[in-house]
Amino acid sequence: MPSQSVPLVAFLSDYGRSDPFVGLCHAVIAAHAPHARVIDLTHDVAPQGVAEGALLLADCLSSLPPAVVLAVVDPGVGTSRRAVVVAAGTPPHRRLLVGPDNGLLWPAAEALGGADAAWEIDITRLPSRPVAARTFDGRDVFAPVAARIAAGAHPDDVGAPLPVEELIRPELPITSLGDGALHTAVLRADRFGNLLLAAVAEELGQAAWVVGDEVCIEAGARSATARVSTTFADVPAGAMALLPDAFGRLQVAVCEGDASHVLGVGRGADLRITDARSRGSDVHPAGT
Amino acid sequence: MPSQSVPLVAFLSDYGRSDPFVGLCHAVIAAHAPHARVIDLTHDVAPQGVAEGALLLADCLSSLPPAVVLAVVDPGVGTSRRAVVVAAGTPPHRRLLVGPDNGLLWPAAEALGGADAAWEIDITRLPSRPVAARTFDGRDVFAPVAARIAAGAHPDDVGAPLPVEELIRPELPITSLGDGALHTAVLRADRFGNLLLAAVAEELGQAAWVVGDEVCIEAGARSATARVSTTFADVPAGAMALLPDAFGRLQVAVCEGDASHVLGVGRGADLRITDARSRGSDVHPAGT
Amino acid sequence: MPSQSVPLVAFLSDYGRSDPFVGLCHAVIAAHAPHARVIDLTHDVAPQGVAEGALLLADCLSSLPPAVVLAVVDPGVGTSRRAVVVAAGTPPHRRLLVGPDNGLLWPAAEALGGADAAWEIDITRLPSRPVAARTFDGRDVFAPVAARIAAGAHPDDVGAPLPVEELIRPELPITSLGDGALHTAVLRADRFGNLLLAAVAEELGQAAWVVGDEVCIEAGARSATARVSTTFADVPAGAMALLPDAFGRLQVAVCEGDASHVLGVGRGADLRITDARSRGSDVHPAGT
Repeated sequence: MPSQSVPLVAFLSDYGRSDPFVGLCHAVIAAHAPHARVIDLTHDVAPQGVAEGALLLADCLSSLPPAVVLAVVDPGVGTSRRAVVVAAGTPPHRRLLVGPDNGLLWPAAEALGGADAAWEIDITRLPSRPVAARTFDGRDVFAPVAARIAAGAHPDDVGAPLPVEELIRPELPITSLGDGALHTAVLRADRFGNLLLAAVAEELGQAAWVVGDEVCIEAGARSATARVSTTFADVPAGAMALLPDAFGRLQVAVCEGDASHVLGVGRGADLRITDARSRGSDVHPAGT
Repeated sequence: MPSQSVPLVAFLSDYGRSDPFVGLCHAVIAAHAPHARVIDLTHDVAPQGVAEGALLLADCLSSLPPAVVLAVVDPGVGTSRRAVVVAAGTPPHRRLLVGPDNGLLWPAAEALGGADAAWEIDITRLPSRPVAARTFDGRDVFAPVAARIAAGAHPDDVGAPLPVEELIRPELPITSLGDGALHTAVLRADRFGNLLLAAVAEELGQAAWVVGDEVCIEAGARSATARVSTTFADVPAGAMALLPDAFGRLQVAVCEGDASHVLGVGRGADLRITDARSRGSDVHPAGT
Repeated sequence: MPSQSVPLVAFLSDYGRSDPFVGLCHAVIAAHAPHARVIDLTHDVAPQGVAEGALLLADCLSSLPPAVVLAVVDPGVGTSRRAVVVAAGTPPHRRLLVGPDNGLLWPAAEALGGADAAWEIDITRLPSRPVAARTFDGRDVFAPVAARIAAGAHPDDVGAPLPVEELIRPELPITSLGDGALHTAVLRADRFGNLLLAAVAEELGQAAWVVGDEVCIEAGARSATARVSTTFADVPAGAMALLPDAFGRLQVAVCEGDASHVLGVGRGADLRITDARSRGSDVHPAGT
């Protein structure tokens, strides 16, 4: 690593910000890699939400400069689940990903072209844990490993090779297109009330919808009409739009409003989206 | 820029912290300006609260070392609103401010002595957007421009000069003094329940109130008596004080208590403050 | 300080993240110590929760690399309470701690072996405050002092020696063991609903409990049976465990669940823990 470069660690977790968990991981990274900088992607993945974290991590990758990726959403901490380093991508987009082997890293590796090497972290090669409990592998396992790699270590220094075929795949929300309806899930509502969907923007084209079309969005007992758009302002204030989000997925938004409130749904909800012209009398404008 | 200096980007937005928006802006800044550091002033401006963000940004400036200022509260993302760079102040207090041209940057420029140059950002000079949507100009426009300037670029490298007269002015809360009453707005309640007001501390003197005076604070149907003070502990526990905040504005606080709770108001509320001696029998102590 | 080292400031407060308080302290640190990095341990100590902040700070210390420690939980801001620098520990674990003299720094100093030197900060040696109010000593006193020390200043440069005997001790939650019951307090519930207790893990042994034992945890009118464990997964999903946390204290957790919800308690609650075998018919499984 040239002396002028700044090693980066990109960090995503479900630790939240109210507890000192994130700060202590930063402290450990500073101890092992004093010159590294940490970019906090988000720490508000739903607690133990492996699938949500996995998709968020994959979505963030395209904006990242070269960095070691540290991701911790770890319902299996303290069990025999593996701690791993995964390599994917070709230079300059090659990345090393550090985290639990529970599917969290898989979509990110896929987005880079697929995992081509992996290592199982050997905790006997790490500094001893500060206390006896095995409840905080972020601080005790994953952050030290990510920091040492950011400081120049090779994954062979922290673990033994693992066939990539043995890595765990995640269970992700299923998006399907059939009978003229797109079925997809809400990954999360963002701060502005926009509903971020699992479906990717290409599925608009697969459904033969183009900008300007009207679609009906059903969320349980509620439904609303939305216009296929490219940005929030393509519809009037108070109207609903279906448009690409910042990561290439679809989102449902209300211009100057809150789609999560209008449809009464958030993280995990299932949506059914159909062509508004093909529907009967039960199509209502947003908010009714 | 001398090799030993650390370029700074001071960043304010309404992105919140639960979504990866802030983290992705950090990632983009690291990509364009690997040696820059980012100071997160706050990201909890009310969603699309341009006036609140504008005043907060102006208030924060006096504590800032030399830094490029990046501010994003952007209800017009995706519309034809301009993206701008604004210059204001004289060395060593000269600053370049990057953000949407919707009034957000104006009070900060005024606090520095007024904008004396501006540029309209030309997005054709930026790296191509990662996806087709135009919903995240923080990542795709403002952060790259702020980073490039922090790394030494001149605003001419990212845009064309714009007459400062064409910059948009914000609509700010109005503070007025008349008939013995100070009318002002609550900008926000802070974590301790203190009500931060739009009125500046000088308005105490214009109202001819001095430390020790008692004033009546009316918030809709509720009212309470407060003592003009210089710090929280100038009144007994449970009593209300009207005092300068950390930015030269006024605040309403309850010693060891929560003024927002006592008066039942928060962000955006209108207050009427009068001399308690000039009022009738409807003056009540805090909490009644 | 060698030119290659990165000075660190570890920062804990009750400022929260919604206001610009933390960001402005970062700005001031960057102004006084451009090469320093700040590690935010947590800023979500309960507002004015000196005891909670004091224990959290002490708990975080063992994970910290060499750093100046900046801690601000300061209900007495604006009063005559002292602002202090405290030294404790022997190299390489010697630390300088900066904050209000209200007990906040004391447990951290004890964890390092006890304070062996202290200084009272002399605010006349600091840059003048930006405004007249004395409501934000984090920005105006503590952050500048921490930054100057991080940049190489000696505490003598910012204050006068103070006998360590004069430092204020905090009032901490009392843990007691007697009549077969461990009485302790909930310091806080973490994001996962785990109840972090004041009792330290050694008290399990003093109570003669070993891994596998069943204990009864009483919280007011509710009670539940928990198993003494070493990690979350030692009990089945939905069952309650009493185990060491990441800091050497005890915690109550529900495997794949939320102990705070099951017991209906959070920050500040008192718990009574007894051997389940010695109890009568009023022992119930978790959640009943």
